[in-house]
Amino acid sequence: MTDYSYKIEMSVRDYELDMQGIVNNSVYQQYLEHARHEFLLSIGVNFKAYADMGINLVVIRAELDYKQPLTSGDRFWVGVRLERESAARFAFYQDIFRCKDDRLMLRGKVIGTALNERGRPRIPEELAALLQGKNLRHE
Amino acid sequence: MTDYSYKIEMSVRDYELDMQGIVNNSVYQQYLEHARHEFLLSIGVNFKAYADMGINLVVIRAELDYKQPLTSGDRFWVGVRLERESAARFAFYQDIFRCKDDRLMLRGKVIGTALNERGRPRIPEELAALLQGKNLRHE
Amino acid sequence: MTDYSYKIEMSVRDYELDMQGIVNNSVYQQYLEHARHEFLLSIGVNFKAYADMGINLVVIRAELDYKQPLTSGDRFWVGVRLERESAARFAFYQDIFRCKDDRLMLRGKVIGTALNERGRPRIPEELAALLQGKNLRHE
Amino acid sequence: MTDYSYKIEMSVRDYELDMQGIVNNSVYQQYLEHARHEFLLSIGVNFKAYADMGINLVVIRAELDYKQPLTSGDRFWVGVRLERESAARFAFYQDIFRCKDDRLMLRGKVIGTALNERGRPRIPEELAALLQGKNLRHE
Repeated sequence: MTDYSYKIEMSVRDYELDMQGIVNNSVYQQYLEHARHEFLLSIGVNFKAYADMGINLVVIRAELDYKQPLTSGDRFWVGVRLERESAARFAFYQDIFRCKDDRLMLRGKVIGTALNERGRPRIPEELAALLQGKNLRHE
Repeated sequence: MTDYSYKIEMSVRDYELDMQGIVNNSVYQQYLEHARHEFLLSIGVNFKAYADMGINLVVIRAELDYKQPLTSGDRFWVGVRLERESAARFAFYQDIFRCKDDRLMLRGKVIGTALNERGRPRIPEELAALLQGKNLRHE
Repeated sequence: MTDYSYKIEMSVRDYELDMQGIVNNSVYQQYLEHARHEFLLSIGVNFKAYADMGINLVVIRAELDYKQPLTSGDRFWVGVRLERESAARFAFYQDIFRCKDDRLMLRGKVIGTALNERGRPRIPEELAALLQGKNLRHE
Repeated sequence: MTDYSYKIEMSVRDYELDMQGIVNNSVYQQYLEHARHEFLLSIGVNFKAYADMGINLVVIRAELDYKQPLTSGDRFWVGVRLERESAARFAFYQDIFRCKDDRLMLRGKVIGTALNERGRPRIPEELAALLQGKNLRHE
């Protein structure tokens, strides 16, 4: 269990299960998105407020390693760690653990950027400072 | 545009858009899953029939490169190419193109395996033969 | 099978099934929404264009009678009929039939209105005319 | 605010919003389903365990009145009340309130039944007793 900047606990909901009786693959990205947005909110970055200003935080790459499936009744937590990748890219390292035994269920890396109103990748200074501050505080 | 073994055309549905007015990240995995299942069906592998027999085809890794966002009204096609990765793993190369200009929207690689009733990775001979036949026919 | 103004054919996708191996309850509303938007488009009303103008077409009531469950591999069609309910309300009668036997799977009634930028229910004249025209043409 | 047998608090997740920036219509049924399953669990009825035994609890009718839209950042609670409707039917009265002002956002009534392995509606005695007990205790 790496050192995470942020953790959030959630529960599996039965409608997230597919015919195999386990959480559907696509749902983990929803978990990760919710964890990212809550994490961003915790450092003062409001995803929706940015979207309303025409600055869209978008995912450009996702890597997901499915280790063990979550199923009905499971509680789990998502750990989030943020790293600057380049001038215009940042990486969220996000792992999902089952609460009852802290077992690793999914390991994820999600790379994002910010697009301005003309669709050009550009991280606003305000956001960059927050990301920078986050890194300074946590690493 | 690589040579694909299978192509399927689909339409964006408005409920798949998020507050940014573009298809939500997690939805692309749903598109890819549907394309994989239809492709498998076309080569005689019925995902649900296998699940009912206790053989679960599962995803163990997904890599998704988001190139351009799909939005309301877009039609798109998913190209699928299958490769054997190892004794127990196969890789689906799956790319999404917008129909109106054949522009690449997402490049994906999804690695799967088959789990028997005891949760052990093992591709049934029947499936292996089909996969092998697929490779022989198409490459 | 009532007389519908519009019909659209769709396929069940495996990720829409839940642990019972049937399409999850909430998914039918997604089918109905997609059918409504395609129907509206066919009469010249673009849901997204209206949303971009600050006019939000919203659902205020839904009644859904689940007759038989759709499952993996099913193709189905949605029939849509529109009726003006009052000055500010219109009703979509929407039924879902399985293609292979035209069996009724779901009977739905969805009541909508349009909200202007201040959140007040008000159907724009342009839309009212279209709705009116629709009724005149079809009933 | 009626008297509810069960309450559960949840948060809106950003991926649940659609292009209008509000929670999509179909998502409320997911909220209601999760609340029902948690409620059932609290009275000893495990939806998944029943499904595994071949007894499927299914929805046969849903009525949803959308009062106000939930949006990004909202916390809300779902109140649940159960009533026996007939020999084979039970009704869940489920309402959604926004936490910050206890404002009613959605009023729902969901009618369910239980289907045995042959697809016949029949509420198992065990479940009937629990439902009965629930009613006796709460009304």
